[in-house]
Amino acid sequence: MLIVGEKINTSRKQVQEAVARRDAGFIRDLARRQFEAGAHYIDVNCGTFISEEPELLSWLVREVQDELNNAPLCIDSPNPKAVEAALKVHQGTPLLNSITGEKERYEALEPLVVKYGCKIVVLCMDDESGIPRDAATRYQIATRLIESLTAKGVKQEDIYVDPLIQPISVDTKNGLAAAETIRMVKEKYPGVHAICGLSNISFGLPERKLLNQAYMVVCTTYGLDAVILDPEDKMMMRLVYAVDALLNRDPYCGKYLRAYRSGLLK
Amino acid sequence: MLIVGEKINTSRKQVQEAVARRDAGFIRDLARRQFEAGAHYIDVNCGTFISEEPELLSWLVREVQDELNNAPLCIDSPNPKAVEAALKVHQGTPLLNSITGEKERYEALEPLVVKYGCKIVVLCMDDESGIPRDAATRYQIATRLIESLTAKGVKQEDIYVDPLIQPISVDTKNGLAAAETIRMVKEKYPGVHAICGLSNISFGLPERKLLNQAYMVVCTTYGLDAVILDPEDKMMMRLVYAVDALLNRDPYCGKYLRAYRSGLLK
Repeated sequence: MLIVGEKINTSRKQVQEAVARRDAGFIRDLARRQFEAGAHYIDVNCGTFISEEPELLSWLVREVQDELNNAPLCIDSPNPKAVEAALKVHQGTPLLNSITGEKERYEALEPLVVKYGCKIVVLCMDDESGIPRDAATRYQIATRLIESLTAKGVKQEDIYVDPLIQPISVDTKNGLAAAETIRMVKEKYPGVHAICGLSNISFGLPERKLLNQAYMVVCTTYGLDAVILDPEDKMMMRLVYAVDALLNRDPYCGKYLRAYRSGLLK
Repeated sequence: MLIVGEKINTSRKQVQEAVARRDAGFIRDLARRQFEAGAHYIDVNCGTFISEEPELLSWLVREVQDELNNAPLCIDSPNPKAVEAALKVHQGTPLLNSITGEKERYEALEPLVVKYGCKIVVLCMDDESGIPRDAATRYQIATRLIESLTAKGVKQEDIYVDPLIQPISVDTKNGLAAAETIRMVKEKYPGVHAICGLSNISFGLPERKLLNQAYMVVCTTYGLDAVILDPEDKMMMRLVYAVDALLNRDPYCGKYLRAYRSGLLK
């Protein structure tokens, strides 16, 4: 499982304040902790800053990559100006989060994906359907976007489809709809990855971490192979190692046993 | 999810000693704790006693049912004499664990299932294949046993197929083989239930509870609807409530919210 650490996001109050005062130490510490807890990519999002976003997003990229010996980042913005500013300074191959089927957003971001050769998160939404309720419509949107991107030379292996998770408190079928989208996309495009953020599934219910943890296991059983989460949620990370071993995605349980020996399963 | 509490089993040292000294208080307490933690059936197994098994199994049935106002039990023995002794004293409809495709065992137990009208666990093994490694052979055995039992008037709804879980430490494909068996059986016979004990999956690996917990979620995603476990494992029970809500098996998340209000999700 590919882990994207979600914590450097200015929708979180402490991060907002740290970015506002350019507190590089706070940001670097948050990056390092996530990295040491098992994250492969560190998400950076400062979308709350709007006009300053291009400058601040590239600042975040520089600080985090400097702290982590140029570990790859997940550049998290729908703003083409902020995205390009960040891509210009990023070392190595980032994951861009995200493109959608919305015409304006697609047309602004697709050229950047091609120019910078980055990996790309594709959200299953467009102008016509918004976020569709059912798996079939999400699958259609994903198919259209995958075909468009690969026609421009983007490799299947660089595409990460996010089905977009909606809360089960709103409709108890929402969990299955997103999971089923993952299954359909992976069946049609075995090279394409499936990714999601988990926290939306539990919105409006108590014990949200529990639901997020169980839903990660459900989605992984449906083919999820990348996930945006809090790597400092120890139970979540324990379950990540466990489910990879259980689903025959960890030869000889090697990663599971290494995680155990490193103290990550405690 | 139907929960069978597994703890009254004389393969556990404390239970062995309690049964040996006919310590009804110990047994009743263990029954009550599992019941209050959410078990719907209480498993009783005293197979280690061999010649005394018929007498002791019926003693266990009487004590546990007396303690729990005749809550139903899971009568866990391959010994036809012990099974019949227990069925004679059991009040209401028990779950018998278990019948297999082994000729001698099948022929001895099938008449008891029919005579006493009990629910029955069917293990996917027989004389020819032992416990098969692959899902297809397990599915064939399950199909044959389901057809035999229903031909004798046993209802699909009273049959619980156990795919038989083998450790992933022996072969990392073992987790998927059992889960796939569940999917195949439920697809062919929607009325039949799928059940399993979980602990074998983690044999030989560290942090066994973690693997058992994650595997419960995996199997439930494949269609598991009954499980033999330790209801005093709080994280396991929390995940049971969570996965039912996530898989649209809990209308309006009602059971999840009731469990939360009862303190079971803490």
